[in-house]
Amino acid sequence: LSPKGQRPAPEALAGLPVAVDAMGGDKAPAEIVAGARRAAEEYGIPVVLVGPPELVGATGGLELVACTEVIAMHEDPAQGVRRKKDSSLVRVAELVRDGEASAMVSAGNTGATMASALLRMGRLPGVTRPCIATPLPRLGSAPAILVDAGANAECTPAMLVQFAQMGAAFSAERYGLADPSVALLSIGEEPSKGTPLVKEAHALLAAGDTGVRFLGNLEGRDLLPSPADVVVTDGFTGNVTLKALEGSLRFLLEVLFGVFGTDGATWAASEVLLPHLLPIAAEFDPENTGGAMLLGVEGVCVISHGSSSSVAVVNAIRVAYDLARGGLVDHVAAAVAGP
Amino acid sequence: LSPKGQRPAPEALAGLPVAVDAMGGDKAPAEIVAGARRAAEEYGIPVVLVGPPELVGATGGLELVACTEVIAMHEDPAQGVRRKKDSSLVRVAELVRDGEASAMVSAGNTGATMASALLRMGRLPGVTRPCIATPLPRLGSAPAILVDAGANAECTPAMLVQFAQMGAAFSAERYGLADPSVALLSIGEEPSKGTPLVKEAHALLAAGDTGVRFLGNLEGRDLLPSPADVVVTDGFTGNVTLKALEGSLRFLLEVLFGVFGTDGATWAASEVLLPHLLPIAAEFDPENTGGAMLLGVEGVCVISHGSSSSVAVVNAIRVAYDLARGGLVDHVAAAVAGP
Repeated sequence: LSPKGQRPAPEALAGLPVAVDAMGGDKAPAEIVAGARRAAEEYGIPVVLVGPPELVGATGGLELVACTEVIAMHEDPAQGVRRKKDSSLVRVAELVRDGEASAMVSAGNTGATMASALLRMGRLPGVTRPCIATPLPRLGSAPAILVDAGANAECTPAMLVQFAQMGAAFSAERYGLADPSVALLSIGEEPSKGTPLVKEAHALLAAGDTGVRFLGNLEGRDLLPSPADVVVTDGFTGNVTLKALEGSLRFLLEVLFGVFGTDGATWAASEVLLPHLLPIAAEFDPENTGGAMLLGVEGVCVISHGSSSSVAVVNAIRVAYDLARGGLVDHVAAAVAGP
Repeated sequence: LSPKGQRPAPEALAGLPVAVDAMGGDKAPAEIVAGARRAAEEYGIPVVLVGPPELVGATGGLELVACTEVIAMHEDPAQGVRRKKDSSLVRVAELVRDGEASAMVSAGNTGATMASALLRMGRLPGVTRPCIATPLPRLGSAPAILVDAGANAECTPAMLVQFAQMGAAFSAERYGLADPSVALLSIGEEPSKGTPLVKEAHALLAAGDTGVRFLGNLEGRDLLPSPADVVVTDGFTGNVTLKALEGSLRFLLEVLFGVFGTDGATWAASEVLLPHLLPIAAEFDPENTGGAMLLGVEGVCVISHGSSSSVAVVNAIRVAYDLARGGLVDHVAAAVAGP
């Protein structure tokens, strides 16, 4: 139950707008407003923008909820949320809390997005700590997800079990998987491998009373493509690993494009290959995946990449709207309550 | 000081053979023996093989130190070393301990290699726990190294400081860097980011009395190419991250070769690009990097990839020989003793 009392039914959420932080992200407000307009015009999704009118500018007919403050990208998250009570990031969370929006979307300060969602919407009953779910591409099929991708640097074994439960509920709702499989990220397949945290989490997940289909441990080399639909780890390891994967993909693309530009012959060769490579690269592009998701709070909260363009914003709004209508929050709450 | 007493001088080590575990690795003994022969014949490096004569077979004239046991690739490391006192992995470490070999090389069971080096050679004075250093490629220049790449799943802040000191000594000796820079792997550049372990290690390294040139924190996305010569982390994070990088490189190569094989036109294009791509791929190939190194023990110990072919073995033996002659162990001991 939210601080407001009864959680709204999914049917009720379908009629509510998605609240979009117009001032969040490196390309705000222009790309955010453009993405919000496209979501409304091309997909018929109800959207409300939130931000200071003088900064947001023209909204192209979209409703703007006015506020007076903005939390900057690198501002201290906790301080920002505590001090700037009339900031766009705090207000989008309040709109969800107050039953005036179905979901919130921000490409702004990730820590402040988490803090405002947690402090304004509140945690789901029984959830120790919310976590971030981020997609891991699997070419040609539904992405796997990594939880926790960075919300909690310090975790307990029981928290990892909840990440598994929440991640499985999200994977089922987001990708339509009937019974998502879960694996634990470690340094060997044997249950005896890893830190005490990982070994204890393994024992809890293997005990079989958590409601998730646990496959066992998985190693770093198995993340692309992941054999498990949900990969569970603490937020420190998850964040380092995810950024390492992003960095290696970027590095190899730079290498490849460097080779393409060597001379006329390599340039001609690249023109033959690019039509095949670009659709694959698109599956890895955070612009197309709809962003990361904060799980475990009383509402749908999509955290988009700070570099989000209008395309990323459109996708984030679509994902947020679909998940709210689909009853994601109810499903996550039920998963944590156990089988 | 080693259990034998005085540590041998580097000049004395230059005259001693490198002890090679003939039975270690997926391709043992054939590829190991072939690599050892090439190291002796092509590079004039003194080499001694260790293994059961009936299993090793023909050595092509290389000296074979006979033993009766073999520790299998997936055998429990501690049990293996404790029970199989006459195994090839234990005997190579004893040859170094007894002043009969300058260094040990094995492509076998990593845990057992560490255990035999640690138990038979012993730790360097003042070293809390040895660590594994693994190269991170930087195209066209000396690799960075990651410490600890997997020896210690659980670490203290003081251990991370020692990894930094040992890693810097190794980087200087192996790659000829005058004053290697050191960074700490974390989830943000600010000293306040990360686990308590990382925050405390940051404070110790930033205090400036460790003898290493500390740059601050570095994120996962900065590992390829690393701006720091030495990247410090705990062995759990290091192992997961390193395997994630290996896995993403393998995955992308598979994707690329899949595209090359699409049709005649892509195949022709690949023939133009491959002469440019293969030298780059070679810099990422563990076969060419000489393997990982166990730092903090009373002798040079090279841990080769389990899939090592003769090429990897040649490179590992060359690295081991050069480091022993260069006085690596003395330099690591001095680094841990502090400035």
